[in-house]
Amino acid sequence: MTNVLRILPLGGLGEIGKNMTVIEYGDDILIVDAGVMFPENDMLGVDLIIPDYHYLMEGDRRSRVRAILITHGHEDHIGALPHLVDDIRAPIYGTPLTLGLIENKLRESKNLHEVDLVSFRAGEVIEIGPFTIEPFHVAHSIPDCVGFGITTPAGLIVHTGDYKFDHTPIDSWPPDFAKLAEFSQRGVLALLADSTNADRPGWTGSEMELLGGFEEVFRNASGRIIVATFASLISRVQIAAVAALKFNRKIAIAGRSMRDAVKIARKLGYLDLPDDLIVDLGQAVKMPPSQVVIMVTGSQGEPSAVLGRLARGRHNQLSIERGDTVVFSAHPIPGNEELIYRTINQLYRRGATVLYDRIARVHVSGHASREEMKLMINLVRPLFLIPVHGELRHLELHAAMGKELGIPEERIAVVENGTPIELTPYSMTVRDRLPGGYVFVDGAGVGDIGWAEVRDRDRLAQAGYFFAVAHTNGRGDLIGRPRLTTRGFVNEKEAEELLKGAEEVIAHAVREAYNAGREITDGQIESALNKYLYDETRKRPVIEAIIL
Amino acid sequence: MTNVLRILPLGGLGEIGKNMTVIEYGDDILIVDAGVMFPENDMLGVDLIIPDYHYLMEGDRRSRVRAILITHGHEDHIGALPHLVDDIRAPIYGTPLTLGLIENKLRESKNLHEVDLVSFRAGEVIEIGPFTIEPFHVAHSIPDCVGFGITTPAGLIVHTGDYKFDHTPIDSWPPDFAKLAEFSQRGVLALLADSTNADRPGWTGSEMELLGGFEEVFRNASGRIIVATFASLISRVQIAAVAALKFNRKIAIAGRSMRDAVKIARKLGYLDLPDDLIVDLGQAVKMPPSQVVIMVTGSQGEPSAVLGRLARGRHNQLSIERGDTVVFSAHPIPGNEELIYRTINQLYRRGATVLYDRIARVHVSGHASREEMKLMINLVRPLFLIPVHGELRHLELHAAMGKELGIPEERIAVVENGTPIELTPYSMTVRDRLPGGYVFVDGAGVGDIGWAEVRDRDRLAQAGYFFAVAHTNGRGDLIGRPRLTTRGFVNEKEAEELLKGAEEVIAHAVREAYNAGREITDGQIESALNKYLYDETRKRPVIEAIIL
Repeated sequence: MTNVLRILPLGGLGEIGKNMTVIEYGDDILIVDAGVMFPENDMLGVDLIIPDYHYLMEGDRRSRVRAILITHGHEDHIGALPHLVDDIRAPIYGTPLTLGLIENKLRESKNLHEVDLVSFRAGEVIEIGPFTIEPFHVAHSIPDCVGFGITTPAGLIVHTGDYKFDHTPIDSWPPDFAKLAEFSQRGVLALLADSTNADRPGWTGSEMELLGGFEEVFRNASGRIIVATFASLISRVQIAAVAALKFNRKIAIAGRSMRDAVKIARKLGYLDLPDDLIVDLGQAVKMPPSQVVIMVTGSQGEPSAVLGRLARGRHNQLSIERGDTVVFSAHPIPGNEELIYRTINQLYRRGATVLYDRIARVHVSGHASREEMKLMINLVRPLFLIPVHGELRHLELHAAMGKELGIPEERIAVVENGTPIELTPYSMTVRDRLPGGYVFVDGAGVGDIGWAEVRDRDRLAQAGYFFAVAHTNGRGDLIGRPRLTTRGFVNEKEAEELLKGAEEVIAHAVREAYNAGREITDGQIESALNKYLYDETRKRPVIEAIIL
Repeated sequence: MTNVLRILPLGGLGEIGKNMTVIEYGDDILIVDAGVMFPENDMLGVDLIIPDYHYLMEGDRRSRVRAILITHGHEDHIGALPHLVDDIRAPIYGTPLTLGLIENKLRESKNLHEVDLVSFRAGEVIEIGPFTIEPFHVAHSIPDCVGFGITTPAGLIVHTGDYKFDHTPIDSWPPDFAKLAEFSQRGVLALLADSTNADRPGWTGSEMELLGGFEEVFRNASGRIIVATFASLISRVQIAAVAALKFNRKIAIAGRSMRDAVKIARKLGYLDLPDDLIVDLGQAVKMPPSQVVIMVTGSQGEPSAVLGRLARGRHNQLSIERGDTVVFSAHPIPGNEELIYRTINQLYRRGATVLYDRIARVHVSGHASREEMKLMINLVRPLFLIPVHGELRHLELHAAMGKELGIPEERIAVVENGTPIELTPYSMTVRDRLPGGYVFVDGAGVGDIGWAEVRDRDRLAQAGYFFAVAHTNGRGDLIGRPRLTTRGFVNEKEAEELLKGAEEVIAHAVREAYNAGREITDGQIESALNKYLYDETRKRPVIEAIIL
């Protein structure tokens, strides 16, 4: 095991190596990022998903974690920290903005006292145990974003984090090409690179191009402009602000999470919003429509976010009016399309004009497209390529691209979360995938429910339930009528007849068992009801019978 | 009411005027199309959605329906016929291929004896009551597709059906531009036109371009090629066949619905598949991989379709092998993205290379894009424009386009399903929307469940249920222990402790009620449990308590 560098991507069902990566050499462990995933549509009732880091809880590993390095302040990179810091006490390293957002998060979860936050700036060099860590600046959709060069005894690895090669980001801080070239000069053992847009040809648009798109929207809109985006998409708030300034509009921010993020970014100097550009929502709704921009949360169609409430007429301060222009400045995350389009339709129904990325230049991705991914590979020229950040299909496309660029197939590792990769200065070995994977957060419980409970919920979601409680006298007769109750199965009118039939089925089963000299069981009643209800309705509710 | 032509679009929650349109003049009624919608992700447990046509069931209207005119044989235009023909006995008019597919469908639903099927060909003239109907050929993704010119006493209306202006369709039968121009010459009162791609700039790709894309796939694939598409996308089967012939591969068809559709299309001469090009699946799996193409269902990620089963290794004849190339020749229907991408990842995991529309030219839409929609408007030059086929957002974009082309705003009607539009030779009036909307098909029931039941299912899906049955002696004590049962709420280990606590909560509530001289009710136990369970878990299962 000595001399071997172990890299272990952790995370959810979809993206690989996105939410957390473990880097281990000898006695020392680094963690890169600790984010959450959002559940897919069929993970019923699940609130969040966090990486399953039980690998770190085995043996004495938790005491060997030297640092938690954070690339940037988006939820899918920091959202699991409140859970992680309960288990692992290691200092958290991040840039000032990233740490500002983390501080806010840990204060809310009441974990702030448990952790040490250590600030760094891109370009600094941090020594931790046997590791020399060089954060380098990258462009993404939040400011102060880094990737990491990590020199280990096995060699130098480069972890890009989320990035794009934006030459004209809105904060005028382009990615650090020179540092990447310098790494390349020194010789890079392995590149862990963002694969998110591996199915997107060309080069991702610059944030500055987007400013042009926003200006066009502002030029054409005569009424209010409502811009929906992610709460933490600070760069987008900056673009809206620049456009607002130019077109003499004031900005209001609606939605607590976005207000928090903006406040932190402004305080730390990452967001250039003059005080007199900002108004509060109460003021904004009283101003002439042509003088207002309102930034809101809810760009993924979330019904409880500000835009979702506006779409249904359920916001207490603000309502959509004819003449409003609503801008979706975000791309649908797969699985959210239906809710987003429904929200757009509802907004139209209330008289708004709605602009979204298919019909207006109001969003650019924060991730590198194929040509940028090629540039990254050729800038860094790693011995080994480890595509990360993306679903398996993206990683495979990234791997194929690496091959096209001349990296031999055996030097590219496409793995799934939980699969350790071992590196020496001249070899890479993919180990067997570890058991486990991800953990559901459900209500107050973390890891308390799993797929078994989700499958039960799915069955209930398909056809509801049917409960029966019956009393027998032990001589084949029912005492009184059975108590029957059902929900999500049939409507009440239909239920009435069904319930009558079900009473007979129960009475019959009880009588039959008695005549056969058997004792009637809950299970027998359940089978009889199952058959009857399926014959009548072609549906299979969850059935529970209790015979007293 | 006399002299007034009434147009009533019916259908589901999403697309408008897609699945069914009622056209009524005086005593005579025509129905155009009778399709189904598929439920959205939050319509839990619902199998299908059909238009709510109770308007036709009121008064003597059902006896006044003279004909059901069908534009083409896709499910969203014919799928509701098995339900509709139970209620309305009018002849069904369609082109030969469309009727072939309808016949198959009604035979399966055992309704075939109830109906008269009347065949026509594009270009014919059909007189029905006061209506003169002129079906005209359009290009779409299934052959033998028409729109309708319908001359009524109020004027000529043109209903495009689903269309695109494909100059080089794979069946070499371009749309009938001349007929549209002729309508225009005669003067068109109203145009009902497909809005599906109103957010897509430019011109939709031709099926013939797609052939180029397919040939590239066939040229590069060394192993088997598996093409997934809609069962009824006959044109796509033709393209695969042309490519297969060129590259010396045989075709097998997997999936009953696709086999049926292909069989009908071949029998009627709409699909040019030489007998020796086709092999059955059993043969195909034994042939050298480079000589085989397999067409499969499941392009929307449906777990039970052939591709879904292949992705999970659950098909009894076929399994994915390293070297297979899987082609998704379909665009994700909004709401299906997550399932589709999951299927793609699963296929990669089994060693396949997967091509889909973002990374290969393997799909073109069957619907007109913005420039084609403009051409349609300018070819037909209607007095009134009624955008249909699309969600509200598409209709609004289509309407804005009509305005750009010079149609005054007051001559454009964007309405939702269930909203009657009344036309005279020189006026258009939008009436109030009728109550109702769409009907859920759930198991054997049609319209038996509604949103109330779906909401119950949603609650069950969020946190499952908790069920308690307790026996009291009427003096504040429980007889024996309460029977508690729960599902989809917490896992069993956690449940054990919770259940113990719940027993105490019940006993306490019973005792307290007795001491206060009240009779304990089911509702009181339920509230006590609700509070206890929420405090413990932050979840709200459906709770039912029965006190005996």
